[in-house]
Amino acid sequence: MIAARAVKIREPGGPDVLELTDTTVRDPGVGELRVRVEAVGLNRADLLQRQGLYPAPPGAPTDIPGLEYAGVVDALGPDTPGWSLEEPVFGICGGGAFCTHLVVHHREALRRPMGLDAARAAAIPEAFVTAWDALVLQGGLRAGDTVLVHAVGSGVGTAALQVAKAHGATVLGTTRTRDKLGRCLPLGLDGGVVVTDGTFAEAVLELAPDGVDLVLDLIGGAYLQENVNVLAQRGRILALGLQGGAFGELPLGALLQKRGGILASTLRARPLEEKITLAQRFQRELVPRFVSGALRPVIEDVLPMAEVREAHARMEANGNLGKIVLRW
Amino acid sequence: MIAARAVKIREPGGPDVLELTDTTVRDPGVGELRVRVEAVGLNRADLLQRQGLYPAPPGAPTDIPGLEYAGVVDALGPDTPGWSLEEPVFGICGGGAFCTHLVVHHREALRRPMGLDAARAAAIPEAFVTAWDALVLQGGLRAGDTVLVHAVGSGVGTAALQVAKAHGATVLGTTRTRDKLGRCLPLGLDGGVVVTDGTFAEAVLELAPDGVDLVLDLIGGAYLQENVNVLAQRGRILALGLQGGAFGELPLGALLQKRGGILASTLRARPLEEKITLAQRFQRELVPRFVSGALRPVIEDVLPMAEVREAHARMEANGNLGKIVLRW
Repeated sequence: MIAARAVKIREPGGPDVLELTDTTVRDPGVGELRVRVEAVGLNRADLLQRQGLYPAPPGAPTDIPGLEYAGVVDALGPDTPGWSLEEPVFGICGGGAFCTHLVVHHREALRRPMGLDAARAAAIPEAFVTAWDALVLQGGLRAGDTVLVHAVGSGVGTAALQVAKAHGATVLGTTRTRDKLGRCLPLGLDGGVVVTDGTFAEAVLELAPDGVDLVLDLIGGAYLQENVNVLAQRGRILALGLQGGAFGELPLGALLQKRGGILASTLRARPLEEKITLAQRFQRELVPRFVSGALRPVIEDVLPMAEVREAHARMEANGNLGKIVLRW
Repeated sequence: MIAARAVKIREPGGPDVLELTDTTVRDPGVGELRVRVEAVGLNRADLLQRQGLYPAPPGAPTDIPGLEYAGVVDALGPDTPGWSLEEPVFGICGGGAFCTHLVVHHREALRRPMGLDAARAAAIPEAFVTAWDALVLQGGLRAGDTVLVHAVGSGVGTAALQVAKAHGATVLGTTRTRDKLGRCLPLGLDGGVVVTDGTFAEAVLELAPDGVDLVLDLIGGAYLQENVNVLAQRGRILALGLQGGAFGELPLGALLQKRGGILASTLRARPLEEKITLAQRFQRELVPRFVSGALRPVIEDVLPMAEVREAHARMEANGNLGKIVLRW
């Protein structure tokens, strides 16, 4: 057991229910590492958890949010071969990352290469694992495919854009403001649509007359019909979020004619074994590309942990391009 | 060119727009066989085409329905290696099977083994290729999976039931009448639900508390919500038909929680190369099982071609278990 500091949710509510407070963190058990956390990426799920809308999964603290971290190994549990104290590390966790210390399974932790500092590393795991898992592992992305990324200016959006480009795809994106679109062009965006009234299919089909092979969607219900409309033959909608509603009218007839599909996916609810498999593969296939600079997290701002309320408020106002990182 | 007899659609309408009439059929071109058709399986798509609701794809006759046939090779085009005159054959075609003669691509035709007579063979291709493609090739069916087959008493339903059992699955089925369910028990049905008011999820979840891995659905919109409700984690809905409407409310939130998916599929609209690949694989993997008796088409009745109007009326009245076959 070690004394620690954490951001705790006092009760469901707005940003002011967040409090910096003392806590304790247990020693690592068999196969576990304890990490001294240096930086944490903020996610929309943290905002939902703060509002009481997204309970932590079993095993994660109920009152400390935080799904991704970067730091160094602070203590080793038994049976953690190949790890040493003070080794740089980063990764995804089920919750509790907004704390100076965090216990994780050593097989789920990612080795943080030289040259990848904690603030940048903390902005990587959720966005890039989510985008890569959805596009490549679930969606079977192949070179030459055309991909439509909604909210392309968001953390997951900018990650999806880069992952798709790195796999040889043509990438179209939507945003709700024109300046966010412009800021994605240097990342390789091939074409963009500003969505003002909830429709985008006509504009996307002008850019891609045969339709798109994969749609990466965080919006959900409100975009469902238009998403089917932009699909190419055998296209797939990768449904990762519900910001636009949990229900939508599905045009099954159109989906049949296109032999299309919808695949829904979340990372957080997966069993540990699956998360470990994913982490190991991400370490091998994607982490080296952050060192080479082929992939890079898009970071809006790095704030001190004392400004966690402001960080929540800013993400809620939806003004950020890319990730907000908080550091101890 | 050869003189032939065909069932033609005089104009869109009821069964009485069907007429037995003289026609001609062209000689086979490069890579093609002409088949002397002995028997034809009736499909719901034939009824839709008769009503003017399901136009034939390019290359198929617009006024002669029929998607599957069995017969013998009547003439060989150039470049049809390995085929000989009078060789027994069966298969799927884009249309025009309700004719004494039919030109098909030799790579899409299935060799009809000894002991598989034309009437039985004509009842196989659409139902079994559809069910096998959906469950095994699209849905990735594995031994130990639980499958829910809607309209399990139909041609596709009885085929799906057998294919799933042959691959080691537990199979639940729905029908709209109890006696149809009873007649599926000898085919290996593990549990059934009679759907009277459009709901089935509660009853299915009593039989399979963890949910089902694959749903084979021909109903569409009307069953969409309940289909999501019965899915297990990572379950898939295989959407093959729209008998219950082309639109439906999709509970995306529930689909996300289950990491579920919807895959829509049709056979008819596929390009020739895909149909050939499918046929070659079906020949290798499934045709031998009809010879061994492990799989068998469920045939409601074999009628002479002169009774084609009655056959349509009967399928429309929805009273048939399994296939209706017409023979010349």
